[in-house]
Amino acid sequence: MLGQYLENVRKNSPLVHNITNYVTVNDVANILLACGASPIMSDEPEDVEDITSICGGLNINIGTLNQRSIKGMYRAGRKANELGRVVLLDPVGVGASTLRTNTAIGLMNEIKFTAIRGNISEIKTLANGEGITSGVDVNLLDAVTEDILDETVSFAKRLAEDIASIIIVTGAIDLVADKDKCFVIRNGCFDMSKVTGTGCQLSGMITAFIVANPDSQLDAAAAAVCAMGLAGEIGLSRMQEGEGNSTYRNRIIDAIYNMDRKTLDMGAKYETR
Amino acid sequence: MLGQYLENVRKNSPLVHNITNYVTVNDVANILLACGASPIMSDEPEDVEDITSICGGLNINIGTLNQRSIKGMYRAGRKANELGRVVLLDPVGVGASTLRTNTAIGLMNEIKFTAIRGNISEIKTLANGEGITSGVDVNLLDAVTEDILDETVSFAKRLAEDIASIIIVTGAIDLVADKDKCFVIRNGCFDMSKVTGTGCQLSGMITAFIVANPDSQLDAAAAAVCAMGLAGEIGLSRMQEGEGNSTYRNRIIDAIYNMDRKTLDMGAKYETR
Amino acid sequence: MLGQYLENVRKNSPLVHNITNYVTVNDVANILLACGASPIMSDEPEDVEDITSICGGLNINIGTLNQRSIKGMYRAGRKANELGRVVLLDPVGVGASTLRTNTAIGLMNEIKFTAIRGNISEIKTLANGEGITSGVDVNLLDAVTEDILDETVSFAKRLAEDIASIIIVTGAIDLVADKDKCFVIRNGCFDMSKVTGTGCQLSGMITAFIVANPDSQLDAAAAAVCAMGLAGEIGLSRMQEGEGNSTYRNRIIDAIYNMDRKTLDMGAKYETR
Repeated sequence: MLGQYLENVRKNSPLVHNITNYVTVNDVANILLACGASPIMSDEPEDVEDITSICGGLNINIGTLNQRSIKGMYRAGRKANELGRVVLLDPVGVGASTLRTNTAIGLMNEIKFTAIRGNISEIKTLANGEGITSGVDVNLLDAVTEDILDETVSFAKRLAEDIASIIIVTGAIDLVADKDKCFVIRNGCFDMSKVTGTGCQLSGMITAFIVANPDSQLDAAAAAVCAMGLAGEIGLSRMQEGEGNSTYRNRIIDAIYNMDRKTLDMGAKYETR
Repeated sequence: MLGQYLENVRKNSPLVHNITNYVTVNDVANILLACGASPIMSDEPEDVEDITSICGGLNINIGTLNQRSIKGMYRAGRKANELGRVVLLDPVGVGASTLRTNTAIGLMNEIKFTAIRGNISEIKTLANGEGITSGVDVNLLDAVTEDILDETVSFAKRLAEDIASIIIVTGAIDLVADKDKCFVIRNGCFDMSKVTGTGCQLSGMITAFIVANPDSQLDAAAAAVCAMGLAGEIGLSRMQEGEGNSTYRNRIIDAIYNMDRKTLDMGAKYETR
Repeated sequence: MLGQYLENVRKNSPLVHNITNYVTVNDVANILLACGASPIMSDEPEDVEDITSICGGLNINIGTLNQRSIKGMYRAGRKANELGRVVLLDPVGVGASTLRTNTAIGLMNEIKFTAIRGNISEIKTLANGEGITSGVDVNLLDAVTEDILDETVSFAKRLAEDIASIIIVTGAIDLVADKDKCFVIRNGCFDMSKVTGTGCQLSGMITAFIVANPDSQLDAAAAAVCAMGLAGEIGLSRMQEGEGNSTYRNRIIDAIYNMDRKTLDMGAKYETR
């Protein structure tokens, strides 16, 4: 049952260093606080090594990357590797620009990531950079549906094996895979895509969950994904007439704040393959 | 009727590239999602051309400009012009510093803007940079009131003609002008000025509305202005005892999220001159 | 009674220049608007002197400092000193990295701060940089409790005297001290620590309160601290089932928006020593 991994976040209060975009950074900070973790943000190259050193994990998000913050990502990532810290990559918009693609691939070449989270399009771009063909129909790239679930699961496991990272593919169906096992998660709802930054928030949470559960990294990552999706469902169920995506953003974070072990145990919808 | 232009945003889901300030960027992203558009943010000079190339429009806001992002504004703006994309300028704080004034004027000299949105003080500063005198009493610069409406309408039309852009002057009364026609809009309410970034949010929406309605740019811009003001009214009507500007921020974006063609058609308050 | 100092903020609408972190900047802007002040954000070295010149006060927060914004802090701070403006330092994370420590100490060496606000750990780091020993048990650094209240009050007064600044130490108990007098404030609640940026917001408000009350700087700073804590209490009292830290953030700012002189007079809980 996955609820224990949330409980461990609340018990251990992991400190998470975030190099993340300025669009959604406030929500990332608040959702980390909501799940029991503590956020620190720093992207200045001269600052990041010290900050990473005092943190349990590092969350790198390339959403509004710039030449300075890219240097910060490399320096923080190398330091985190040196110290054996958890490091997550959220390759926002990889494939949409040369700089984003080169940065994400470059980071993967130099830094060992504990986990990588993106949508299927982003993850496939990374895999192509690694020379891995997905077997996933390019035309269906925007969504993981039942039709292509088997091949996407295989793809995620192969990529996880090749780069020795946990691979998290989020969308209508979410996948959390290592080389041997893949969680297929059916929490969440469409409306979450109308709130900016639910993916960024999830990446922060996954980092915290893995830090707080060092002996169960894959399950902990799956727990974070289920928790986020479940928070989306709970938040939606509490929406009142006239409310929209801005209030929904608050309700999602609020649902994480109030989520306990039992709620997650009962609400998590997943199978493993 | 203006509701159709909102409907077209929801149908066409235009992708909007925003180079905008880090104060209000999250709200800009969420209001773009609320109206049916999709936001991307990028201000790194090496990244912006690729991002602008995949977007329908570019929203340049100089609110927290820096030397790097200014380079990004020029490069993105030139690329957008080259590709015939919609480009909007929001000259936040122009006139308050030499750098802001020089940047806004410099951008106007090099880049053809589809639309420019600011308050009367900002727009007048731009016009002076263009050598256009406004005829508007300098002492009344902070507000467009009934007393100076005629001369302000004339000024907006003249500026629109001179620089071949749609001119949007927002305040107690909003103006949306090209050289021939000026929408005089009386939606909105004072309380919106107590929420940071309602202007920035509007600039994002205007960009999306113009992109989604290429054959009716002026009317589409007016529709966005009416929609924002109407959202302010709807949000205000939903405020409960003890709520203030932070909740109001959510209620405004929520109102856009729930606004349909008919609501906008019925709620828009404007005349044309 | 402290309510008058809030009333003066609403009357005088001070313009506050913020060089602050991108995590909580939107909330800082909204809480400044909520208390009656006006925010401007700018951190570009070429822009900050002009912006500071038109503002009544400058709020420097090192939360996501970078080499560029550090230059901006120095230039803005020097200009503010030259013009006799109020300047506040919020040394976020000082002690957590060499860059943060060097920046905060360096700023204190070059710039005369009207006020400095931090938690006890941050303030002690600054004091050590000044060669002042606190007398506060290092092991108790994370909190100001009744046990160490007397010695912490003495420490705050000594530091205030040494650097001729108002010293504001926030935590479970808040202290606002100059060399002669220390407000010991018992407003606020634990849940505020689960909302990112309540400290940053308070620093913005303190700056505004001091600007609006030039002849009562210490009392005005204490009024801002009481107002923030009281807003936390009012916000908490309005929380409904299922709500969490994200909604709480809104309720705190909303409570400032609705706070009047009488509410603050009646709700402020403090003694002076």
